[in-house]
Amino acid sequence: MSSHDQMTTNRRQFLWLAGLTGVSAASLSLLNFVIGDHNEETRTRNAEGTATAEAEQSSSEHDHTPTSNTSAASTPSAESAEDMDALHEAGVKSFPAATEGLGGQPLAPVMDGNVKVFNLEASVVSWEYAPGQYAEAFAYNGVVPGPEIRVTEGDQVRVVLTNNLPESTVIHFHGLMLPNSMDGVPFITQPPIKPGETFTYEFTARPGNAGSHMYHSHHNAAEQVTKGLLGAFIVEPADPSTRPAFDREYTIILNDGPIGGYTLNGKSFPATQPLTAKLGERVLVRFMNEGLMIHPMHLHGMPMTVIANDGYLLPQPYMLDTLNIAPGQRIDVLIDATELGVWAFHCHILSHAESRHGMFGMVTVLIVEE
Amino acid sequence: MSSHDQMTTNRRQFLWLAGLTGVSAASLSLLNFVIGDHNEETRTRNAEGTATAEAEQSSSEHDHTPTSNTSAASTPSAESAEDMDALHEAGVKSFPAATEGLGGQPLAPVMDGNVKVFNLEASVVSWEYAPGQYAEAFAYNGVVPGPEIRVTEGDQVRVVLTNNLPESTVIHFHGLMLPNSMDGVPFITQPPIKPGETFTYEFTARPGNAGSHMYHSHHNAAEQVTKGLLGAFIVEPADPSTRPAFDREYTIILNDGPIGGYTLNGKSFPATQPLTAKLGERVLVRFMNEGLMIHPMHLHGMPMTVIANDGYLLPQPYMLDTLNIAPGQRIDVLIDATELGVWAFHCHILSHAESRHGMFGMVTVLIVEE
Amino acid sequence: MSSHDQMTTNRRQFLWLAGLTGVSAASLSLLNFVIGDHNEETRTRNAEGTATAEAEQSSSEHDHTPTSNTSAASTPSAESAEDMDALHEAGVKSFPAATEGLGGQPLAPVMDGNVKVFNLEASVVSWEYAPGQYAEAFAYNGVVPGPEIRVTEGDQVRVVLTNNLPESTVIHFHGLMLPNSMDGVPFITQPPIKPGETFTYEFTARPGNAGSHMYHSHHNAAEQVTKGLLGAFIVEPADPSTRPAFDREYTIILNDGPIGGYTLNGKSFPATQPLTAKLGERVLVRFMNEGLMIHPMHLHGMPMTVIANDGYLLPQPYMLDTLNIAPGQRIDVLIDATELGVWAFHCHILSHAESRHGMFGMVTVLIVEE
Repeated sequence: MSSHDQMTTNRRQFLWLAGLTGVSAASLSLLNFVIGDHNEETRTRNAEGTATAEAEQSSSEHDHTPTSNTSAASTPSAESAEDMDALHEAGVKSFPAATEGLGGQPLAPVMDGNVKVFNLEASVVSWEYAPGQYAEAFAYNGVVPGPEIRVTEGDQVRVVLTNNLPESTVIHFHGLMLPNSMDGVPFITQPPIKPGETFTYEFTARPGNAGSHMYHSHHNAAEQVTKGLLGAFIVEPADPSTRPAFDREYTIILNDGPIGGYTLNGKSFPATQPLTAKLGERVLVRFMNEGLMIHPMHLHGMPMTVIANDGYLLPQPYMLDTLNIAPGQRIDVLIDATELGVWAFHCHILSHAESRHGMFGMVTVLIVEE
Repeated sequence: MSSHDQMTTNRRQFLWLAGLTGVSAASLSLLNFVIGDHNEETRTRNAEGTATAEAEQSSSEHDHTPTSNTSAASTPSAESAEDMDALHEAGVKSFPAATEGLGGQPLAPVMDGNVKVFNLEASVVSWEYAPGQYAEAFAYNGVVPGPEIRVTEGDQVRVVLTNNLPESTVIHFHGLMLPNSMDGVPFITQPPIKPGETFTYEFTARPGNAGSHMYHSHHNAAEQVTKGLLGAFIVEPADPSTRPAFDREYTIILNDGPIGGYTLNGKSFPATQPLTAKLGERVLVRFMNEGLMIHPMHLHGMPMTVIANDGYLLPQPYMLDTLNIAPGQRIDVLIDATELGVWAFHCHILSHAESRHGMFGMVTVLIVEE
Repeated sequence: MSSHDQMTTNRRQFLWLAGLTGVSAASLSLLNFVIGDHNEETRTRNAEGTATAEAEQSSSEHDHTPTSNTSAASTPSAESAEDMDALHEAGVKSFPAATEGLGGQPLAPVMDGNVKVFNLEASVVSWEYAPGQYAEAFAYNGVVPGPEIRVTEGDQVRVVLTNNLPESTVIHFHGLMLPNSMDGVPFITQPPIKPGETFTYEFTARPGNAGSHMYHSHHNAAEQVTKGLLGAFIVEPADPSTRPAFDREYTIILNDGPIGGYTLNGKSFPATQPLTAKLGERVLVRFMNEGLMIHPMHLHGMPMTVIANDGYLLPQPYMLDTLNIAPGQRIDVLIDATELGVWAFHCHILSHAESRHGMFGMVTVLIVEE
């Protein structure tokens, strides 16, 4: 096949995906074809998709068994190249696939005088992290990630948490500077909030503390956070001119826990949402790692400029195309959308992004269109 | 419960812990109550605390089993929220718990003319890494980490190692610039030091090589270092004005080996030691990773400013609150103790810091008091 | 043994290794003695050397079993210190050991007018990653890593891939800015290249995109890349004065897949190749991570200066001696060869570099001679 034919094929594919720009995943799901068969395939892929330290292990056993024989044997699987490719194609064609529930949407505060009040309820839900794939999640307001809390430096903030989980919990505001009593560490700054209890956190969004932060459980946290008790807590600068300008922004929360394995904003490919931009726009991406593993996120086609660590602006931004982010870190990058097309954007620990049956987990795309 | 009640509770807790400031872990142990019952609980918690790549795996199996059922089932464990909370509380209340042995204390040199002589003996000891929890360790001078060696640029240094281990060993001075013959790599720069033998390392602390370095075994090192043959080797600048000033300093050596699993300076929470500072002080923390895994250390309440990598000052320091450090790295940070209270300070790979039975492993606190 | 005796011993060892400078691994193999016995030992060591996420696990079980007994027991193995040391010595003495095949050598382009044409064939081969140790690899032009592709900003580039694998594949040019249709992502930018098919990639080496990049499979990539479908793609600056000067350069591609476990340029110690430099030279090392794990590479004896991430020059270089590199990243460092001797250079996740039976995997040396 010549590269010219290829460009044509690609152009069709590009137009197909470009049409998605700005459309919600829900309506996009209507585009999916042969949905029944597709779900079968999805289920197959996601059986590997629900990778965790455990599943990664078994997938390692599958993918990495050292071989010492000297014969050029064929691949470990008996399936034909056509069968394998069909599974890969079905996954891509179904992207972005419709699933119930969308986390990380802005939570509108209720005003109590000059206090911005954010009401949260923690409960157990069944979360669809990939088409037809459900897991028991611990969720804030029923979604994973929890709703985005966004305030401005100087705001008076109140977060009221009602615990409807079967176990105690607390909220730690990860990255925020606040009174020690509001730090959310059981038996050091507060008692745990027992099932059925409500607890009120109150503090001021400290000037100088602008940036990309998080809120999550700090009780039985290895389990509660990876099961979904996490969300973005973004503090806008009082003076926008103190931070770099951008045309649009996205937050990508990484997780590698029991609900969906390797996920971006609570969903596993093909249920992840594409990032979109118009040619020439500057896009801010806020990466937040709420998992237990590092994830080097690789953007195809154009570089990223790192501007902030844990909310703090770097004295000198620097460029890269593969951003390694560790648990607890938040890293802000700017992307100049200079290249037209549909660009893969995924974790480069390849076993977090693809199996023999296709892409899954920490995979999305950046779509740049005219 | 209102946040006002909470502040009161927290204030009591704060005063209780603030009283610890500057007091040794040994005397603090006298504060522990119901020590017998407590040890029972500690033993339980540390059964999970002795996490290694292996234990982490099994804990992953425990924490991360993907669930595909759609029922909002209760938590995997049958224990009540009260039972779980009681174990968490006992751990925190016993902090800092008394244990035998304290590593990383300064080793006074013996002067031989103008040569600073440091005498080390490597031997097998039983190390108490958490209350009532012992493991076989390979130790320098009986402690884990080994004693801190601290010299000044230009010093003549002699380190005399006597090997009383059942296997050969050597010392590599990790980060130091010295004659190749003193580099401590078996069969490349020296033969291994056999059981019963003594070997002498001699070199000058090279001007320009100031900073946070390490000494550790370089023979069967994956086993010998993680079992305890490691220590801090700090080179002070000849001219202190060439490095940032600070009011007090701490060294935190991370390890994730067979003795205690995830440890800070050879101890697992609640046996770790708190960092303390007076309000307004500037604290230098020297992080050193002697383990086999990365550890993103997260400080609550206030940021850290990174000033040096592997001893070398950064041309431009930068701020963060979650510092990812990889095996072999040393990273120096400054903390301005501007926030009063007891601030959790832990690895944010949450399975290295907390289980369903409470905090363990890589957890301590920074206590900032008036 | 006194340090003076030691310096003598070391001097002999140094001269022995220094003699290797610039000599090919093939001819060096003639220096190996007792090759039969040696292969036995190598086989033993590399049984542990073929570590993967899976093997690392079992080695963790071996190295890290927590012990809670309080007796100062001897080492887990019954072998004597002498037996252990003999295995370590044999490994070092056989370094650099001869093996069939050497990857990463420059691929001369065929000129088609002003287009530089690079012809690649993907096929299954048996790859000798350590003496007497073979694994089934997926290789470009029969070698792992694939041949180095090197062009200059502004060059017209054509890469023609013929797929003789039993499964489909594609090439992604990791780090390059090119037309979306040339990005190599199945079903997004092109259909997979089926067994027996040939596909042509064509693009311009974009000005501003100079630096250390990679090419590798992007189909069933967790398996295909770790099995060997990877190589360096280096873009020289049109104006050399825009990048730091150096006297010689090396590329070190890290991998941790099924072929050889932990490898540097497709080989496991003692089959890795030494880096050599004359005293006073400035050496550029291009690190590229094609594996699934981070690898903190530690150079003994002298620091490294980090100058570029993913090909992009840093606004301010910084110094370190332990460089942590994550999957997908490329990091360029400069080393001023100021210290005479044979300096170990290895991954500081020690289980990737040494077992009880000696060094293996991600270990080489930097030899600095007069």
